[in-house]
Amino acid sequence: MALITLTTDFGLKDHFVGAVKGAIYSELPDAKIVDITHLITPFNITETAYILKNAYKSFPKGTIHIIGVDSELSVENKHIAIELDGHYFICPDNGVICMIASEVQPAKIVEINIHNHIESSFPVLDIFVKVATFIARGGKLDVIGKEIQSHKKLIEIQPKVNQDRNLIVGGVIYIDNYGNVISNISKKAFDEIGKGRDFTVTARRYTFKKIFNKYNEIVNFTSEDIRQYDGSKLALFNTAGYLEIAVFRSNLKTVGGASSLLGLRYRDTISVEFHEEEKPDFTTV
Amino acid sequence: MALITLTTDFGLKDHFVGAVKGAIYSELPDAKIVDITHLITPFNITETAYILKNAYKSFPKGTIHIIGVDSELSVENKHIAIELDGHYFICPDNGVICMIASEVQPAKIVEINIHNHIESSFPVLDIFVKVATFIARGGKLDVIGKEIQSHKKLIEIQPKVNQDRNLIVGGVIYIDNYGNVISNISKKAFDEIGKGRDFTVTARRYTFKKIFNKYNEIVNFTSEDIRQYDGSKLALFNTAGYLEIAVFRSNLKTVGGASSLLGLRYRDTISVEFHEEEKPDFTTV
Amino acid sequence: MALITLTTDFGLKDHFVGAVKGAIYSELPDAKIVDITHLITPFNITETAYILKNAYKSFPKGTIHIIGVDSELSVENKHIAIELDGHYFICPDNGVICMIASEVQPAKIVEINIHNHIESSFPVLDIFVKVATFIARGGKLDVIGKEIQSHKKLIEIQPKVNQDRNLIVGGVIYIDNYGNVISNISKKAFDEIGKGRDFTVTARRYTFKKIFNKYNEIVNFTSEDIRQYDGSKLALFNTAGYLEIAVFRSNLKTVGGASSLLGLRYRDTISVEFHEEEKPDFTTV
Repeated sequence: MALITLTTDFGLKDHFVGAVKGAIYSELPDAKIVDITHLITPFNITETAYILKNAYKSFPKGTIHIIGVDSELSVENKHIAIELDGHYFICPDNGVICMIASEVQPAKIVEINIHNHIESSFPVLDIFVKVATFIARGGKLDVIGKEIQSHKKLIEIQPKVNQDRNLIVGGVIYIDNYGNVISNISKKAFDEIGKGRDFTVTARRYTFKKIFNKYNEIVNFTSEDIRQYDGSKLALFNTAGYLEIAVFRSNLKTVGGASSLLGLRYRDTISVEFHEEEKPDFTTV
Repeated sequence: MALITLTTDFGLKDHFVGAVKGAIYSELPDAKIVDITHLITPFNITETAYILKNAYKSFPKGTIHIIGVDSELSVENKHIAIELDGHYFICPDNGVICMIASEVQPAKIVEINIHNHIESSFPVLDIFVKVATFIARGGKLDVIGKEIQSHKKLIEIQPKVNQDRNLIVGGVIYIDNYGNVISNISKKAFDEIGKGRDFTVTARRYTFKKIFNKYNEIVNFTSEDIRQYDGSKLALFNTAGYLEIAVFRSNLKTVGGASSLLGLRYRDTISVEFHEEEKPDFTTV
Repeated sequence: MALITLTTDFGLKDHFVGAVKGAIYSELPDAKIVDITHLITPFNITETAYILKNAYKSFPKGTIHIIGVDSELSVENKHIAIELDGHYFICPDNGVICMIASEVQPAKIVEINIHNHIESSFPVLDIFVKVATFIARGGKLDVIGKEIQSHKKLIEIQPKVNQDRNLIVGGVIYIDNYGNVISNISKKAFDEIGKGRDFTVTARRYTFKKIFNKYNEIVNFTSEDIRQYDGSKLALFNTAGYLEIAVFRSNLKTVGGASSLLGLRYRDTISVEFHEEEKPDFTTV
């Protein structure tokens, strides 16, 4: 029984998602189809890369992931299928896969070449579904494409590190449902470069000297009412392993979230400076 | 075959929902997963309680309901699993279950205690999915938790009744997709207290002397065009059994709904006054 | 195994969709349920007709489509079940089916008459689910309704053609997730009336002399950067076969889409004028 996920910028109102599901069920009546999201900001590759990286790992090996973001075929935007970590990804070669592929080496990448037989202006429906159902039936990637050795990388998903290795300059790559602002600075990079030194996180005019691991670590439960922390700013490594600027129990519709309260937007700079000498106690919050 | 529902404030864009579904399918490839909603206003317990109460009853006995709203574990916010009316609920002990449990007595409540083995900042993924799949396989609640006798109640879901029992003072607990404004005053409470007396419903400066049972009862079909009623205010008992202030064929994006047209918001007061004496005919609309 | 789709204006927050799915699974544990959309603008029949027409064809024969838009029963708004093109549609008789039925003749239409036994203010849950599961089990339409010969038509889905047959006057029937503006002028009508003549498409103060078949046909890939076309206006026949006014790689949240940039709204006029004589080359873009 095939498990197929969908990640697109189609939105949830138009007929596109329904049509794609109908086409999959027409080919594979027993398939399980899971929506990862259809609310990607139109044409936003970085958002797609971030969401995909954090969602795919929960799925069992053998899952087939269809990615429909900026997928119109052109000489600059080929269609590829990738086998990686036991999963299959069918997507345009525009960088959507690069956050995953930066951590796990693809086992195989092919440039899909079944387009000769199919004239399409809706490639997710006409091409990607065909490839997905072919793979689901046990088909080999070589049959639907020509092996290639590399795929497109995105520059903005990698933060920069200075030569002295005491400064990481990253940027906002995603803003989540709670308005929390997520940077491209991973805990892994932070630990490797920081080596346990004291640090200052800077996001616009706000600074943080501590990075939490859970939202409610900010709360001192023994003495206080949890609600007094509502709206507190904090930096934490989120469950995806990235440095996040958050507002405790935020709500974009009422009190606002980190994005609105701190004025942080997609692509804004977030940096971490590491300090050479141990600072006196009163500055480390 | 397990049927598992999800009710969260995760939104539909982030990777959270996809990750949870992937984790469920990894454990139970045959599971059926149903989204009740992921659009709960962040951290809003009352909304969750209302939606859950109205949705769960349609599902077959044995369904397992995962509720991920304000679910970060803390000493004030334990995780519980409840067996009630043949259904299972896995949720934080923050009141989300209380509208259901006020009508049907839980058969068993346990405080989940498998956290010792699992360090998690994403408890729906790491804890609730584990508990759900355990129950789906026939596991007993006692194995994953310690039986407790009560759960947290929400104050705002119960309207107040005065000593003379001629006034119910309730509040807005939910605003639906059409902008209809739903109070915490149930038809059951209305009937028990009103005992057939005449009444006046008051919501801000608007009053209603009649409560309908269907939206289009307001229309006199024999003589008129249905469209002339578009935008008419009415009070009715909705399909969930609660007193609702509605606007006939409302549309929040164009003409507006009851919430915008009447200026009614979450937690605003809605009251019902019962009249001792039969009123003359011309005041009963 | 039954495949049942849902197309409603219920939104994704309220309990309505979850309740309907629970009711279907209670009757048919093995059913596959697919959301076509729940984000129809409340009570908008034309939107529903457009989405349904474009989605249903991808599904396998035998699929049962439930349509819950403006479905409260009244003497003016009967409930019907239709067999057409091997698919089943259960819907109010308000025109939602007319775009499909204008191309494919229904095999059978019945007016549902099981209401006598069921008092309901939530007909999708109480009536449509019952009819759907009855059909899924192999039940005949005659058992749940009385055959009728016609269904309600919508006027606005048909463009007008002048007597000289050199002018098609259509209107905007849908605005998609990217802000693209879709008219009721089909490629089929355009070809039949235009017979290859030169033409001018007019939408407000904008005119187009060429209609593309794919968005990126506007780009000349050999010499230029694709991004310089971002925001370019174009007319094309979309994948649904309708004349669409689009903005290349548009994004309603940032640069805007055709709807916002060109000021085109639902029901605005879009026309095509055909020119009798071959125009000199410099006017044909």
